[in-house]
Amino acid sequence: MPDVAASRVAHLATAGRDGRPHVVPICFVLDGETLYTAVDEKPKRTRQLKRLENIEANRHVEVLIDHYEDDWSRLWWVRLRGTARIVEDPRAVELLAAKYTQYRDRPPAGPVIAIEIEERSEWTSSPS
Amino acid sequence: MPDVAASRVAHLATAGRDGRPHVVPICFVLDGETLYTAVDEKPKRTRQLKRLENIEANRHVEVLIDHYEDDWSRLWWVRLRGTARIVEDPRAVELLAAKYTQYRDRPPAGPVIAIEIEERSEWTSSPS
Repeated sequence: MPDVAASRVAHLATAGRDGRPHVVPICFVLDGETLYTAVDEKPKRTRQLKRLENIEANRHVEVLIDHYEDDWSRLWWVRLRGTARIVEDPRAVELLAAKYTQYRDRPPAGPVIAIEIEERSEWTSSPS
Repeated sequence: MPDVAASRVAHLATAGRDGRPHVVPICFVLDGETLYTAVDEKPKRTRQLKRLENIEANRHVEVLIDHYEDDWSRLWWVRLRGTARIVEDPRAVELLAAKYTQYRDRPPAGPVIAIEIEERSEWTSSPS
């Protein structure tokens, strides 16, 4: 079974009011049925960030955690579908800093995206 | 500069008629201003593949090629926005097989997604 919680990077897909999809790499932490990811950019730039604009227009998001290597018998992915909110949550930042030491020296400057996971699917190429 | 063409995996985001975003890992090859990716699944399953359903409803897609490592001064991404078509294109399969030896033994069973790249943006955390 893939160790999703230990994965260091995931991909967050959002879609805007215009229906155009958008994908960004994210650092994340899981806490029960919630996934947290923080926005690193400073507040001034944050207001223009498409992922935040999109979530404000359309809360449906998808997160993919996946593993690639050239041995195609060892691929896997886990897909989380859910609903996102933009929050200020010091506890989420603490959880992120517990996973990523990088955040201890330089906490994320922007808000947190909290995703309530409503659906989970997974796939592995491994036969066992 | 990130060597995008040499990257082995990318992430394709699509959005359906219902506005929900969807993200999948893809193998890909670049040919001028076109990106090709193949569908590995057999035709029977292919018809239900959400990425194909989504592209039929909404041709706007985004592809992200990115690099993660725990040294956050070495992150980068390249984002390609474009318009997707579902095609049968033996030449695209040849290009994919030239990049991925895995396809030589087992060519992709499904159709090809051809993405005309209309916009490219990139970012690197490296100061130089």
